[in-house]
Amino acid sequence: MIDIMKLIHTADWHLGKLVHGIYMTEQQREVLRQFVQLVEREQPDAVLIAGDLYDRSVPPTEAVELLNEVLYQLNVELKVPVLAISGNHDSAERLSFGSSWFRRSQFYLKGKLTTDFTPVRIEGVNFYLIPYSEPGIVRELLGDDSIHTHEDAMKAIIGEIEKQLNPNEINILIGHAFVLGGKTTDSERTLAVGGSGCISADVFSPFHYTALGHLHSPNALSHPTIRYSGSLLKYSFSEANQKKSVTIIELDDNGQFEIREEKLTPKLDLRELEGYLDELLDPAFYQQQKTDDYLKITLLDEGALIDPIGKLRKVYPNVLHLERKVDFLDERRKEQYFIMKEKEVSELELFQRFYEQMTTRPFTDEKRSIMKTIIESVKKEVL
Amino acid sequence: MIDIMKLIHTADWHLGKLVHGIYMTEQQREVLRQFVQLVEREQPDAVLIAGDLYDRSVPPTEAVELLNEVLYQLNVELKVPVLAISGNHDSAERLSFGSSWFRRSQFYLKGKLTTDFTPVRIEGVNFYLIPYSEPGIVRELLGDDSIHTHEDAMKAIIGEIEKQLNPNEINILIGHAFVLGGKTTDSERTLAVGGSGCISADVFSPFHYTALGHLHSPNALSHPTIRYSGSLLKYSFSEANQKKSVTIIELDDNGQFEIREEKLTPKLDLRELEGYLDELLDPAFYQQQKTDDYLKITLLDEGALIDPIGKLRKVYPNVLHLERKVDFLDERRKEQYFIMKEKEVSELELFQRFYEQMTTRPFTDEKRSIMKTIIESVKKEVL
Repeated sequence: MIDIMKLIHTADWHLGKLVHGIYMTEQQREVLRQFVQLVEREQPDAVLIAGDLYDRSVPPTEAVELLNEVLYQLNVELKVPVLAISGNHDSAERLSFGSSWFRRSQFYLKGKLTTDFTPVRIEGVNFYLIPYSEPGIVRELLGDDSIHTHEDAMKAIIGEIEKQLNPNEINILIGHAFVLGGKTTDSERTLAVGGSGCISADVFSPFHYTALGHLHSPNALSHPTIRYSGSLLKYSFSEANQKKSVTIIELDDNGQFEIREEKLTPKLDLRELEGYLDELLDPAFYQQQKTDDYLKITLLDEGALIDPIGKLRKVYPNVLHLERKVDFLDERRKEQYFIMKEKEVSELELFQRFYEQMTTRPFTDEKRSIMKTIIESVKKEVL
Repeated sequence: MIDIMKLIHTADWHLGKLVHGIYMTEQQREVLRQFVQLVEREQPDAVLIAGDLYDRSVPPTEAVELLNEVLYQLNVELKVPVLAISGNHDSAERLSFGSSWFRRSQFYLKGKLTTDFTPVRIEGVNFYLIPYSEPGIVRELLGDDSIHTHEDAMKAIIGEIEKQLNPNEINILIGHAFVLGGKTTDSERTLAVGGSGCISADVFSPFHYTALGHLHSPNALSHPTIRYSGSLLKYSFSEANQKKSVTIIELDDNGQFEIREEKLTPKLDLRELEGYLDELLDPAFYQQQKTDDYLKITLLDEGALIDPIGKLRKVYPNVLHLERKVDFLDERRKEQYFIMKEKEVSELELFQRFYEQMTTRPFTDEKRSIMKTIIESVKKEVL
């Protein structure tokens, strides 16, 4: 048995991800460089990657090359066992290519669920690798017609595992799933049972630690033995306030463990800025900012602004999204703002309001006539 | 040095290939099953696969799984070294994934050309793996602006190899290229120099044997030391009369060798049939045939035939292509046949002729009126 075992748990790398049309590959490369350094420093007994290595079943070739390079550094150069599963974004079949060869150097890559539930054994600890699988696949694989939901599927899989599991050994599950609820919160349990996608935390009770991927926040679940590591990077502005990290687990031979988070820092952060245009364009403000971060900017200004995105991009080159805070508009402007939804206003009239608001110049008869022709010819083409 | 070395040379597997809309995967699976048996029987010192393992850069998952399975059987189960390169149909980057791990069990997969021209050494024989590369890639890689054609590129690559090549050892090149001409045929040499795609055979003179892929016929090139193995299967009707095989090479320690072809037989052949419809539908004829082969049928009949493809498919379920031999039509019919090309005939008139020919029933006014409406409404939608 082990004296103490150190694991690093990560997930949701999403290599090849596009955020607002921008490839995150260079950010991923940087963060994975830091990850490889962390592994070199920490010398863990294994690295666990809980699914969504790629962002899609056919990732761009740069992503394929990056994954190959990083896994090679971890597994072959640093000689660290790597245990990885496919997530819902990966192609189980494509990711599986070569996995029989990888095993020889303790790179265990489980792309596709099979009926072989033999654990990977490292220093007396059992690791059960459960790739993401649709309930229908599990139903067919196990020949169990009662499987309909993800919870049914995971219960059945863990049922199979329990046939051979020795509860006196340390058992760890690596999975990619939507797990909800701690043991005691009824409200979450209801949710878990209700939705076909989510799995109640209780299902994982046979394991000393469950290393999950799927939800992108390390705080997505608060549970003593089940944990999301969180994604490698912030992959949407809804994640802008999350702290991304990987999890370091130190296990003793009773299966008790301590957890530590290690932050990884991309060159460019993804974050939100809110303010008035003049304020954001004021050197006194932006000189305090990392201006090349990926930004979602929300402008508080009311009324017309001339080319705000052009002006902002001169200072903040990576503005990915610009919004106006409509709540702040007064009633009259709000009405104009939403008037697009009303059918009775003609396109020409809408354009005129827009033009006048944006330019503060008169919408002359000549302009009106030109615009009318354009709108008509566009409509003809569309209809 | 070796006493005698046995190699099996194959190429152009094109896994994931569609022929006339039909996936060849099951035929490929069968032929590769025979190939694995052949390797088991022959116990070669290495298997050489000279490119186009897949038919496209993103092959279907069944093709990925089949390639994985076959390579595993050859390399891990039978413990035979495998030397493979990517062809123009493969994605160099995608195919390269995992190749650093594969090397450990003597599976040498070179997806992407690099400046490392160190040969793979097996029992004292040097194997140079040159994946298919566009001239522009080689130009950039070698920093040689004079590279414009495939011949330039291959000459430059072989120039690099010659810097370290020991001509007293046995040297073998594995390549995927369009190579033309023996040493003596001037006409072919002109061709080779003229076309930017083709490479003159002389370029490969430093090698005792050059194992090529790209052209699908084992007879594509007649040369004492350069050889195409030919593709795994017939992949178009233009290959219908080719005999497909893999090449077994037995080398002695002077680099002299003998060659043997081993045929692989798919369950369904791809072949052409020509005849009159009645003849082809006559049991006396088709009972002598393997009727479920993939067929291109050329009908010799003149004039109208009612649903010939429907009738033929009842006997020959895998007719992939049906043709009429237009040369046999008399002048009047030929005129009708080609009349589609003339603009002055209206669609309605063309349809009438077609209808009368196919049905031998009159094209009534009512039918004409219906057809006219249909044609008009189609034209309106299209324009």
